[in-house]
Amino acid sequence: MKITPLSGFPEWLPEQRLVEQLLLDRVRRQFELFGFVNIETRAVEPLEYLLSKGATDKEIYVLQRLHAQEDEGHAGLGLHFDLTVPFARYVAEHASKLSFPFKRYQIQKVWRGERPQKGRYREFYQADIDIIGQGELALSHDADIVRVLHAVMGSLPLPPMSLSINNRKVLEGFYLGLGLDDRMGVLRTVDKLDKIGPAAVGELLRKEHGLSAEVAGQVLALAQIRSEDLGFIEAVRALGVAHPLLDEGLEELRAVMAACADLRPGAVAVDLRIARGLDYYTGTVYEGTVAGWEKLGAVCSGGRYENLAAMGGKRKLPGVGVSIGISRLLGEALAQGALRASRPTPTVVLVALESEARRPVMERVAQALRDRGVACEVFDRPIRFGKQIEQALKRGIPYVWFCGADGAPDEVRDLSSSSQQPADAQSWQPAAERLHPQLLSQG
Amino acid sequence: MKITPLSGFPEWLPEQRLVEQLLLDRVRRQFELFGFVNIETRAVEPLEYLLSKGATDKEIYVLQRLHAQEDEGHAGLGLHFDLTVPFARYVAEHASKLSFPFKRYQIQKVWRGERPQKGRYREFYQADIDIIGQGELALSHDADIVRVLHAVMGSLPLPPMSLSINNRKVLEGFYLGLGLDDRMGVLRTVDKLDKIGPAAVGELLRKEHGLSAEVAGQVLALAQIRSEDLGFIEAVRALGVAHPLLDEGLEELRAVMAACADLRPGAVAVDLRIARGLDYYTGTVYEGTVAGWEKLGAVCSGGRYENLAAMGGKRKLPGVGVSIGISRLLGEALAQGALRASRPTPTVVLVALESEARRPVMERVAQALRDRGVACEVFDRPIRFGKQIEQALKRGIPYVWFCGADGAPDEVRDLSSSSQQPADAQSWQPAAERLHPQLLSQG
Repeated sequence: MKITPLSGFPEWLPEQRLVEQLLLDRVRRQFELFGFVNIETRAVEPLEYLLSKGATDKEIYVLQRLHAQEDEGHAGLGLHFDLTVPFARYVAEHASKLSFPFKRYQIQKVWRGERPQKGRYREFYQADIDIIGQGELALSHDADIVRVLHAVMGSLPLPPMSLSINNRKVLEGFYLGLGLDDRMGVLRTVDKLDKIGPAAVGELLRKEHGLSAEVAGQVLALAQIRSEDLGFIEAVRALGVAHPLLDEGLEELRAVMAACADLRPGAVAVDLRIARGLDYYTGTVYEGTVAGWEKLGAVCSGGRYENLAAMGGKRKLPGVGVSIGISRLLGEALAQGALRASRPTPTVVLVALESEARRPVMERVAQALRDRGVACEVFDRPIRFGKQIEQALKRGIPYVWFCGADGAPDEVRDLSSSSQQPADAQSWQPAAERLHPQLLSQG
Repeated sequence: MKITPLSGFPEWLPEQRLVEQLLLDRVRRQFELFGFVNIETRAVEPLEYLLSKGATDKEIYVLQRLHAQEDEGHAGLGLHFDLTVPFARYVAEHASKLSFPFKRYQIQKVWRGERPQKGRYREFYQADIDIIGQGELALSHDADIVRVLHAVMGSLPLPPMSLSINNRKVLEGFYLGLGLDDRMGVLRTVDKLDKIGPAAVGELLRKEHGLSAEVAGQVLALAQIRSEDLGFIEAVRALGVAHPLLDEGLEELRAVMAACADLRPGAVAVDLRIARGLDYYTGTVYEGTVAGWEKLGAVCSGGRYENLAAMGGKRKLPGVGVSIGISRLLGEALAQGALRASRPTPTVVLVALESEARRPVMERVAQALRDRGVACEVFDRPIRFGKQIEQALKRGIPYVWFCGADGAPDEVRDLSSSSQQPADAQSWQPAAERLHPQLLSQG
């Protein structure tokens, strides 16, 4: 039978997977440092539910059993295509057992039957955080999301992230102030700015939406406002449009930016062209790119929403959250060679095997090291020590251990310096940075 | 829309998921201490391939795209039902880039469309290790598997595991020595011992397989041999059956038992009724149960095989491996209340919020603690401190931090003792056992 890779289903070699593991460990660690608790949802949801959640533009993978018996009710399950939709169902199902505000993180694979292309897979990891309130949720959490993203991306040895934020109330309020009717249509056209440029968008606004040149100019001018401080407020005011919702949006944006003033300069910028998920978000929206990797598109995005789930629950569940495209980030990092692990194996020490007869001695040494947290293997076959050292070098193992015979002390060889020292398995420690593989930038 | 749980797709509350995470962390840590490297395979395999790998008795979930276009070649994908079959495909696909012996661990969910029952799910976690050689693989690795399982189960705060081993050559050789023709059939009948007892098995051996009372008695006598030391050899010899393959099997079993002699007494026992996966394993076989949880069935199992993958590769890939049923173990532990986390949240410190105006001060303290590895949240709203302390207690957060005003020092309150001390966010450390949630037995 012929073995061929499946397009869109990335699989990594062990040393690449180690990079992914170390990256996921760091993301998890940062989420937990901010007090987010973890959940995992099942991979499947009722198809009817997936379709009710705006899945029209996603290609859902539907499950069927090979030997299905009709009465077993398996019909109508699909693989989840994101982590927000299962999260909404999870909260609706378990709300009475959760405490609010509920801060959860979720790192799982999702599946989409889309055409694979750069940065787009059919199976990929997402890492989501959301903060959900019951009835209400303080605006301070919108700044929390910026802080977490800043910390997560800052913990990765990658180029810095540019995080842009906007507020849907600013766009909606501005358009209301201009007296526009088809505000969603205008938003969708403005959303094409990156693709087709301001001249083409301006033409569409005039020809398709019937806007006057002046109004189209104001819509375009708004979308082109960007600032790393509070200067955006004056820039919007200068356009001379007024509406209470615009005021509300500007005040929210100001508060979020002010709350993040202690982060590194440029860590977050207001960019009024950002819209994200047109019919879901109602306040702050987020979009992050890696500096120099703009062609990859957003590596994280999200926003504030009025109600997590319209699932018949009694109370509104307002929330704010973002999703990090782990596979998109990792795929690009691996393709560029931007990330690597300090070594390809967890093993710290290879215990040289002198002879099969003495193997029990070597196994005891290995277990003594493991009991003290030092990852350890006993060599496979009693070939000559030079060959065993070669194998350790080839596999990136930093130390080789030699068990002393006839009362002689054990010795440990540091393969980076070729120095060899007497050592005791009950007390020896490797250099701290070699205890675990480290995530490093390739450079 | 009505939200109902899906039978067979377990989902855990955050505090239960934390137990699962801590359990998986420990399993992963032990695997790595023994030098196993991690891989993850995609969730899907070609249906044709799954079916060629003995999937007849498993219910495979087949994928279909909702809006499939016929020319896109999506037909014929199924979700994997174990981790061995994808591993074999992975090794065949990437063999030239792997180094052998290849020691890999793999912890992923698998899917089976079976009828859910106690200990059986439709979606569940397995944790697999395998050691694969190219051409040959030393017998010492069969003992490695015992050591890893012993270490993994010993690292969990659960009742001790009883690990039983056998060797397929012992059974096959003994039956050959008896001159049996339908050795697989006899094996399958003997495999029912636990279910129907020796009398019924004896009757089946005589009536269905046409064995004489004497031969049936010998088959049964072999299956009832169990020993925690090397006594099984004499017990088998006493049955008076001879065959070279029997000798080979007994010698292999002896060697594995001898190599594990340093483990705690009873950690591993020879049990000649263990057969496992009838047509796949060719040497050592393993089966582990948790003491007192025998009704749950095996929580880990596996064995030695001649060739990982009959996939057209040039060289034989002999291996030995086991699979740990993580969800089965966790499901029972949670149902019994046998495992818990020391607290339900990663958060170590809740920073009390005095007023929205002073929030920036509190955020700076929180980030200073996080930068030093202390998980930290700033409280949501500036309600009175007594209420904030109550919330911390309710959520299981061990410390509350109060930021001093007007030059007064900060103070930290230990909620377990209600003692409050001056503290500096640049140097304060929580009690070591409170830095992370711990996995504990409930008792």
